[in-house]
Amino acid sequence: MVPLQATVNCDMGEGFSLYTISDDEALMKTIHLANIACGFHASDFSIMNATVAQAKLHGVAVGAHPSLPDRQGFGRREMAMEPDELLSCFVYQIGALNGFLKLHGLPLNHVKPHGAVYGQTARSLPLARAVVTATKAFSTENDKIAFIGLAGSAHQTACEEAGVRFIPEWFADLDYDATGKLLITKKHDPVSAEVVRQRVTRLLECQEITTNAETFLPLGENVHEVSICCHSDTPGAVEIAKLVKALVDESNCR
Amino acid sequence: MVPLQATVNCDMGEGFSLYTISDDEALMKTIHLANIACGFHASDFSIMNATVAQAKLHGVAVGAHPSLPDRQGFGRREMAMEPDELLSCFVYQIGALNGFLKLHGLPLNHVKPHGAVYGQTARSLPLARAVVTATKAFSTENDKIAFIGLAGSAHQTACEEAGVRFIPEWFADLDYDATGKLLITKKHDPVSAEVVRQRVTRLLECQEITTNAETFLPLGENVHEVSICCHSDTPGAVEIAKLVKALVDESNCR
Amino acid sequence: MVPLQATVNCDMGEGFSLYTISDDEALMKTIHLANIACGFHASDFSIMNATVAQAKLHGVAVGAHPSLPDRQGFGRREMAMEPDELLSCFVYQIGALNGFLKLHGLPLNHVKPHGAVYGQTARSLPLARAVVTATKAFSTENDKIAFIGLAGSAHQTACEEAGVRFIPEWFADLDYDATGKLLITKKHDPVSAEVVRQRVTRLLECQEITTNAETFLPLGENVHEVSICCHSDTPGAVEIAKLVKALVDESNCR
Amino acid sequence: MVPLQATVNCDMGEGFSLYTISDDEALMKTIHLANIACGFHASDFSIMNATVAQAKLHGVAVGAHPSLPDRQGFGRREMAMEPDELLSCFVYQIGALNGFLKLHGLPLNHVKPHGAVYGQTARSLPLARAVVTATKAFSTENDKIAFIGLAGSAHQTACEEAGVRFIPEWFADLDYDATGKLLITKKHDPVSAEVVRQRVTRLLECQEITTNAETFLPLGENVHEVSICCHSDTPGAVEIAKLVKALVDESNCR
Repeated sequence: MVPLQATVNCDMGEGFSLYTISDDEALMKTIHLANIACGFHASDFSIMNATVAQAKLHGVAVGAHPSLPDRQGFGRREMAMEPDELLSCFVYQIGALNGFLKLHGLPLNHVKPHGAVYGQTARSLPLARAVVTATKAFSTENDKIAFIGLAGSAHQTACEEAGVRFIPEWFADLDYDATGKLLITKKHDPVSAEVVRQRVTRLLECQEITTNAETFLPLGENVHEVSICCHSDTPGAVEIAKLVKALVDESNCR
Repeated sequence: MVPLQATVNCDMGEGFSLYTISDDEALMKTIHLANIACGFHASDFSIMNATVAQAKLHGVAVGAHPSLPDRQGFGRREMAMEPDELLSCFVYQIGALNGFLKLHGLPLNHVKPHGAVYGQTARSLPLARAVVTATKAFSTENDKIAFIGLAGSAHQTACEEAGVRFIPEWFADLDYDATGKLLITKKHDPVSAEVVRQRVTRLLECQEITTNAETFLPLGENVHEVSICCHSDTPGAVEIAKLVKALVDESNCR
Repeated sequence: MVPLQATVNCDMGEGFSLYTISDDEALMKTIHLANIACGFHASDFSIMNATVAQAKLHGVAVGAHPSLPDRQGFGRREMAMEPDELLSCFVYQIGALNGFLKLHGLPLNHVKPHGAVYGQTARSLPLARAVVTATKAFSTENDKIAFIGLAGSAHQTACEEAGVRFIPEWFADLDYDATGKLLITKKHDPVSAEVVRQRVTRLLECQEITTNAETFLPLGENVHEVSICCHSDTPGAVEIAKLVKALVDESNCR
Repeated sequence: MVPLQATVNCDMGEGFSLYTISDDEALMKTIHLANIACGFHASDFSIMNATVAQAKLHGVAVGAHPSLPDRQGFGRREMAMEPDELLSCFVYQIGALNGFLKLHGLPLNHVKPHGAVYGQTARSLPLARAVVTATKAFSTENDKIAFIGLAGSAHQTACEEAGVRFIPEWFADLDYDATGKLLITKKHDPVSAEVVRQRVTRLLECQEITTNAETFLPLGENVHEVSICCHSDTPGAVEIAKLVKALVDESNCR
């Protein structure tokens, strides 16, 4: 079996105004990739600036984390969006984040949809094409932007069609049902370190997803790379991220 | 006297949702530079996409037209912003517009502040430095972004300090008082074609500003370039813009 | 046949900031009931104040026209809302409008949902119960607030359950398909005066809905009252409203 | 000396979306008056509903805490508002809160402006008149709404002019300078329990304000009532509020 290359990604900069929702400073030290909120479900221009500066300080690669335009619902309510609208919605947000990257002299590394639109674009190929087109608009000769999404979903198909590098994502702190379907929650439940350790080890060593039926499903054929998401608003997020990063860094070195 | 090079600029894409406020399609044919609203005082992601496409179609150079975060007030109410906040506020908006330019393969040409923050940054050097720093972040070796602002104001000083190309602006459809102070209005009053013709001709031929005291003030020393603004929401905006562009194009050819 | 009592209702105050979308001043003279936007899909505090003042001037009864929280989409994109959220969403908006009614000394007459949430609440009884509960919270001993909605839908059921007066609505400027389903559009197509006259006359005289299959369906059993909606943003809205009001006033007098 | 009647008021419900900023449940047990945010600087419809329910549970009197329309700035940036705009801005927010009070069967007790507009209305009589007019619109024969504001400021004058009951406010957790000017901060610094105890005792026993020059200024002539504000976002807010309430309840019983 070809060993699986892995990274840890985390949604960052999801505060707003005076509000904070996670310990970004601590998390920034324990991840490889930061998906930075772009002001539609969370964040604002001041927080984006500070978050990009933090990522630079800790050498974390920065991606955009665009959302449906629904700040009050934290981007976790599905909305009926036309592909055209969604394309523009993502271009706006990725562009805004890219502005802060220019200010700090960093490249844009990837795009990962947030919340409800993650699921909507995973299921709908026209919507997936829209967000992948938005992603591709930011690629240059030298900087190819990756798209992080759900393996085997419309995310992957749209990326393959468009020639955009696709990185499948797996969630350390969410459950998968017996069919392999990710169970997305609005407020994330606590998850024990031991459960996380077992799931991540299974993923890295056997390339299998642990389901909530205590069965195991293959991650996918010819998958040699995965990005493991640790949510910043799951209880104990920093400890979970530290644990997962340690397991990943150890696995990558083997 | 060195002849004055001039362009006509117009604020474009200032609709929102289902609303339109000006005949952008007609205006786009009568201007050299489009200052495209970035979603903070007007516009939204769908309108920005359409407006950039229109500018490309008509060969109009595109600049960002960032605002205070005050959509309900159309960016025409002053707000107490710290320089840091304003820097981030502008980086966000310029970045968002720049995203649509990438999508359509256009360069960013310039930045021009909108409404109340135009006046605030003209008066306050720390605020002017903030928006000029934001502008400069988008400059590359090959594409130098210009800043359009008020001659002799903090706009000009901040640009000179930062080595950003400054283009002084003059308003065809607003009044200047006897001291040369621009009289900014929330809803723009109608202005006659004849008054506009006289003002513009005076500007282009004598490099003088016509005041509402019927006196004339010098445009400024060593000013060889000016951009003439025609507001898209002044009554008769299209006719005014056509007239001004004709005068400008004729003058530039001399 | 018991004659059908009818009113003409129109969505009013749907401008925003500097934007206007309809000729409210003219429309206000041609309707019985104004459904005033509450700031979530359109309108803002200044426009609400002016619109309530206009309604008072013309003796038009005022209702609230609450929406999903989606100003950029003009409330015309469906959103996944929990009943609890939607209840609070409506209480907020009805309350806000009610504030302006207090300022001007007018009673709240009715509530009519706007756009996408009109359809969502017509189909889902839990969502319909939420908005009817919100409506009922504003009823007093003396002022019973009516709910305007779709006949035979969850709107009617929820009103009957809660003891809230239900007024079925019929749309003069939209099409109904052969099954009687209302065909809601984001931008309303033009409709000829003759078509409107025929549809309204059929409704008032025969209590039948004209479908786009050129068939006729009964309005509903035991329906003795109807409110006819004329959209303010349909092309020719003022002329259509005048025509419908004339037909209605004539019919009511018979 | 006539004894001073006092209450403790606290700004409540200042979370937003998934964010919380204070321990409202604990605070609700330690105050007499809750100033509930109305969605413009903080809060949203779901949080307003929950906060009013909490106030009802604990028997806390509810007032509206309206703000400038500036959620990203938490209402702490001054904005240039015309009196007419501000009147409508307040009517909207007070109305929205009043909707939730109707839902829960509670009366509206008072209005207290939030943040920057507190200072702006304290200094400007036209702006103070606007917000007092908005307040008065919600008074009925039986329920007279009070206005909580700064003693000796335009707040008091506008209330006296309009016949609205004025309650002067004093801040337990902010500093006053040597001239008695309140020093409003965007993020509130920690303050020691001992300092708070001394200030409150001085206020209640001597009717004097403690300044940061360690001098004492009279609270005002003929002031027999005061409401003491404890900010919910000051570090240690719950402990401070408990302490102040104990001192106040003891003083009121004397």
